Amino acid sequence: MTRETSLPPDTSVFDCALIIGCGLIGGSIGHGLIRHRVSSQVVGYDANTAHAHIALQRGLIEATVTSLDTALANADLIVLAVPVGRTEQLVVELGRSARPEAVIVDTGSVKQAFTQQCAQLLPANLKSRVVPCHPIAGHVQAGPEHADAGLMEGRPMIMTPEQEVDTEVLRRVARMWRKIGFNTLTMSAQEHDAMYADLSHMPHVLAFTLMHHIHDRGMCPDTLNAFAGNAFRDMTHHAGRNSRMWRDIFYANRAEISRSLADFRRSLVEIENLINSEDQERLEQMLAQLQQARMSTW
Amino acid sequence: MTRETSLPPDTSVFDCALIIGCGLIGGSIGHGLIRHRVSSQVVGYDANTAHAHIALQRGLIEATVTSLDTALANADLIVLAVPVGRTEQLVVELGRSARPEAVIVDTGSVKQAFTQQCAQLLPANLKSRVVPCHPIAGHVQAGPEHADAGLMEGRPMIMTPEQEVDTEVLRRVARMWRKIGFNTLTMSAQEHDAMYADLSHMPHVLAFTLMHHIHDRGMCPDTLNAFAGNAFRDMTHHAGRNSRMWRDIFYANRAEISRSLADFRRSLVEIENLINSEDQERLEQMLAQLQQARMSTW
Repeated sequence: MTRETSLPPDTSVFDCALIIGCGLIGGSIGHGLIRHRVSSQVVGYDANTAHAHIALQRGLIEATVTSLDTALANADLIVLAVPVGRTEQLVVELGRSARPEAVIVDTGSVKQAFTQQCAQLLPANLKSRVVPCHPIAGHVQAGPEHADAGLMEGRPMIMTPEQEVDTEVLRRVARMWRKIGFNTLTMSAQEHDAMYADLSHMPHVLAFTLMHHIHDRGMCPDTLNAFAGNAFRDMTHHAGRNSRMWRDIFYANRAEISRSLADFRRSLVEIENLINSEDQERLEQMLAQLQQARMSTW
Repeated sequence: MTRETSLPPDTSVFDCALIIGCGLIGGSIGHGLIRHRVSSQVVGYDANTAHAHIALQRGLIEATVTSLDTALANADLIVLAVPVGRTEQLVVELGRSARPEAVIVDTGSVKQAFTQQCAQLLPANLKSRVVPCHPIAGHVQAGPEHADAGLMEGRPMIMTPEQEVDTEVLRRVARMWRKIGFNTLTMSAQEHDAMYADLSHMPHVLAFTLMHHIHDRGMCPDTLNAFAGNAFRDMTHHAGRNSRMWRDIFYANRAEISRSLADFRRSLVEIENLINSEDQERLEQMLAQLQQARMSTW
């Protein structure tokens, strides 16, 4: 610890941070880096120039860049905040243009796929400078219009570093996340992907499947609207947007999603057997216990 | 039609309506009967006397009764608005004490089970005077505190009359529902139960199963609270209350729920196969189509 404080300049501060993808997550991180002075400069790139423009106007970044290659060559902190399906091409570009001393993080919700892309596509000297990350800080609405440094306050930031990561890189990344408000924690990429298959990806599969099931039963939107209650509406809410993003997440984490679905099917058989059993006391106990668990969570 | 208008008194008006169960649904119906002068008197009974008291204070009923037998003997309109698990005992009491000329409706969300109870437990002269009904007018919160005649405005009221129902009884019931704001429609009890297995009961099974699955994976409420996103919270919301009520509905409609679950599992296999396929175009098309269906519904 004494060694750190004696290092000039402060290694928790970067010279030039490049945010790739200026949406809700990228914009919020840029905002946090500026607000907490974690980088002398924060520049943003977005394939959607309207997004980059809004982020600039809202003060989430300090400048926009149009040449990604040039920006990569100038940045000592690179934050990938793009949909899961877009990271592979960006990793290729990182390998071509990033500085050997750059610190690289991503923010995607599937970690093994990104880790494999880095292992396969990055030159050896950059592999140790990547920390795969997943901020658990969502918002009901996407886009730079809703980005804000405050979204990260007290939220978890999961880091899934590989064995080969440079210790100093990992330390700088953890310190950066904490400075902008996150509580950092570390797990393996596999642990992360299993956990998020259970907590998010598999439930989203169920939401889409509910719509598919109803479509197969021949019910049209008007019927649904007239006769379905709050439960159906709430349970399918998350099938109502971002189908492209979910396609990419489902495919990237398909092994863990299949495992999670197999577990879910076993739980479903157990509940269904209780429903069809004459012993209604056991069903009541089970449902009361699950209700209690839900109530004590939120 | 001319015959109706010549009948004194107006057959759309009852002398004494008895609401059994003064919660959200019973209270709202009582309120509507009073507001639209569909019954000269509206009295309420609730095994929970606090509920009956609140309903009286809020003007949802005009008097409370403590003896159900006496009240049944006085009523020419009887509205059962109790949980599905409580109707069987009430049908026995109806058979014992209801007047032969009474008009009887229920409001439960499972229709075949109630119909069977009436067929088995009512005397022959009362069987033709029952119209099983299901008001599609919920509210996020239960109880007489939230009851209001306005909840029924423009909402569907499904009626599932058996062949043997008295035509005049059915006509009076339909007219009563329309007077207090409902749009009435008729289907068979089996059609109703299949539809609500798909639209409500089976999705509730999935919500409880999601909590069960997570519990089996060893996740405690703190972990869920910290790491689960909006989707998991929204999809399990309806597993957070009324476990006793849902036990009764699940058991009462178990045959249709099992059929619905079997269909759902087939839809799930189809989606899972698309996720695991190399042809990601087909998955994207499917998810985009389902997203579009959800967006055009609500």
